[in-house]
Amino acid sequence: MTNERYERGWEKLLEVDGDGGQRVMDSLSDIAPDLGKYIIEFTFGDIYSREGLDLRQRELITIASLTTQGGCEAQLNVHINAGLNVGLTAGEIVEAIIQCAPYTGFPRVLNAVFEAKRIFKERHFI
Amino acid sequence: MTNERYERGWEKLLEVDGDGGQRVMDSLSDIAPDLGKYIIEFTFGDIYSREGLDLRQRELITIASLTTQGGCEAQLNVHINAGLNVGLTAGEIVEAIIQCAPYTGFPRVLNAVFEAKRIFKERHFI
Amino acid sequence: MTNERYERGWEKLLEVDGDGGQRVMDSLSDIAPDLGKYIIEFTFGDIYSREGLDLRQRELITIASLTTQGGCEAQLNVHINAGLNVGLTAGEIVEAIIQCAPYTGFPRVLNAVFEAKRIFKERHFI
Amino acid sequence: MTNERYERGWEKLLEVDGDGGQRVMDSLSDIAPDLGKYIIEFTFGDIYSREGLDLRQRELITIASLTTQGGCEAQLNVHINAGLNVGLTAGEIVEAIIQCAPYTGFPRVLNAVFEAKRIFKERHFI
Amino acid sequence: MTNERYERGWEKLLEVDGDGGQRVMDSLSDIAPDLGKYIIEFTFGDIYSREGLDLRQRELITIASLTTQGGCEAQLNVHINAGLNVGLTAGEIVEAIIQCAPYTGFPRVLNAVFEAKRIFKERHFI
Amino acid sequence: MTNERYERGWEKLLEVDGDGGQRVMDSLSDIAPDLGKYIIEFTFGDIYSREGLDLRQRELITIASLTTQGGCEAQLNVHINAGLNVGLTAGEIVEAIIQCAPYTGFPRVLNAVFEAKRIFKERHFI
Repeated sequence: MTNERYERGWEKLLEVDGDGGQRVMDSLSDIAPDLGKYIIEFTFGDIYSREGLDLRQRELITIASLTTQGGCEAQLNVHINAGLNVGLTAGEIVEAIIQCAPYTGFPRVLNAVFEAKRIFKERHFI
Repeated sequence: MTNERYERGWEKLLEVDGDGGQRVMDSLSDIAPDLGKYIIEFTFGDIYSREGLDLRQRELITIASLTTQGGCEAQLNVHINAGLNVGLTAGEIVEAIIQCAPYTGFPRVLNAVFEAKRIFKERHFI
Repeated sequence: MTNERYERGWEKLLEVDGDGGQRVMDSLSDIAPDLGKYIIEFTFGDIYSREGLDLRQRELITIASLTTQGGCEAQLNVHINAGLNVGLTAGEIVEAIIQCAPYTGFPRVLNAVFEAKRIFKERHFI
Repeated sequence: MTNERYERGWEKLLEVDGDGGQRVMDSLSDIAPDLGKYIIEFTFGDIYSREGLDLRQRELITIASLTTQGGCEAQLNVHINAGLNVGLTAGEIVEAIIQCAPYTGFPRVLNAVFEAKRIFKERHFI
Repeated sequence: MTNERYERGWEKLLEVDGDGGQRVMDSLSDIAPDLGKYIIEFTFGDIYSREGLDLRQRELITIASLTTQGGCEAQLNVHINAGLNVGLTAGEIVEAIIQCAPYTGFPRVLNAVFEAKRIFKERHFI
Repeated sequence: MTNERYERGWEKLLEVDGDGGQRVMDSLSDIAPDLGKYIIEFTFGDIYSREGLDLRQRELITIASLTTQGGCEAQLNVHINAGLNVGLTAGEIVEAIIQCAPYTGFPRVLNAVFEAKRIFKERHFI
């Protein structure tokens, strides 16, 4: 059953995460489809659809949060791509990760930077 | 011994953190003055002095990182005030904290929001 | 504007968290009322209203998650009380916290146990 | 040298973790055999042998703790299998992981769900 | 019921943690006495009684682990005192905390340093 | 542009981390060379060059911090090798990791021990 939040969230997911988001949803379909539904409705239908910050600001924040959380390389992959999708430059994304160094230390910053490097190589930026 | 990084960092610390930053430095003077020096030189002289992101973006990222790191209420206090100092609105700061909810969960988001509330009350915003 | 998820969530919040939950919502009303709304809708309207596990099992899991997350003493307070509200015994709650010791270490387990002790004293269990 | 705690723990390890537990012990034998001994004695001989919660409850708690701890996919593998061994259904295990979402965020929940998916596929559940 | 590990652990606890350790045990007696027993037996009877590192090295490691774990100020209090008890100087303890800065970031290092400061003031070192 | 801190740091990096450190720097050169520069200057030029603790003590602390931080297997690889480079024995390194078990739990300790095992095998220690 779809609903307004789901539809708004799905549209936002496609705008922000693109293929990466859809792949996460597909991979949940046979194990925990409701979890995918909550991510679409809550993360994208509720949070990303809020006013007050634009999508580039929201992705800077998400990348900082995932860098600091640690062990979230798969989600960083989705959101570094999402950052590029909504108009952040590769340089701004690396800059956001470096900004976390004084607060969470170099190891998690290195993990995030190397995830960015994998993506930038795939996209032939470097 | 001061040096260029220290001087640039100290100026940036005052611009960004204001009194809150100075109080942290003072409180380190009798226990670990070198630690204060590293924070000034590295965090402010190196990182905050970089180009590529403006100070409002850097504080959004720092607030997201501290919210996610957890147990950093004292540093959130400094950087929520810093966010206001560099031109973020109270609403944007709360928005940045809420943006972390899907990634780090509600408890750390609540801890950060209640720290913001203490500050906004002190400053008579609410 | 209320809606079905909100109403179901609010009812569930009162059933599970009781006064503690309402106090958290009240304390958010002047700083981030939408955050309170999301907690009611998502945590209680969506997650706690799911089938497949009963409320006692859900609170054992929540207490384990908060113990392990660390720095969430305020939320542990709400959910240790919630555990008692839904029929867990004081002994079962302590047992759930101790079960986390091999996985997250003694410090976070001690923090959680001392939060339980404060609550059990208030309720004159010990 | 074996002892009562070790023997009780080893028996419990086999009951709960089965082959997965034995493989962890084997892999420690040439690098840190005492660490394996402590896990058997403390985790299984002491903690899992306690009364007050049954093994299904203990595994729900362990899965919640490991999901929240983060970066513990290898241990989640052992304990998702352990949950099935002691009588949890695949659905209850997924439900326990989803219950952590409001407290630790979606990334760690996704990491745990995808570990569950790997196991359920190996076991031909999905 | 006491046993060899408990007796060895209790003796080691008194040697290492002194009054601080005994206070933790006392505070557990009415809520989770078994947890106190496990800490004595496992942490002190097993781990601290091992050969291969001396007590000063073990406390440097424990202080680094607690600093990095975060939200463990009460346990840092016990182990900064323990470090002094086993012969570390105040300077070495601060040095160990500062050594964690590149790996876990400044906020957790500041939290640990300020805990050290409280202790050094109580002991009239500063 | 090199400088005194950079030169001192680079020399220290080579002394401590050897090839592993140089490989990290190389891998940063096309994505975030400044991050490499900060690691050299701050971590090695500032922190590792301090007096008060010797390099073996500093590596014990770093290994404990990385074990506890979690999700830092790549950095543990560098610093377990570094520990061997500065004169720690394989036994002392394993001992340092085991010492963290009561504070951060078995899963992160197991992750670190298995990283040590990979290195000790490569070096034909086991």
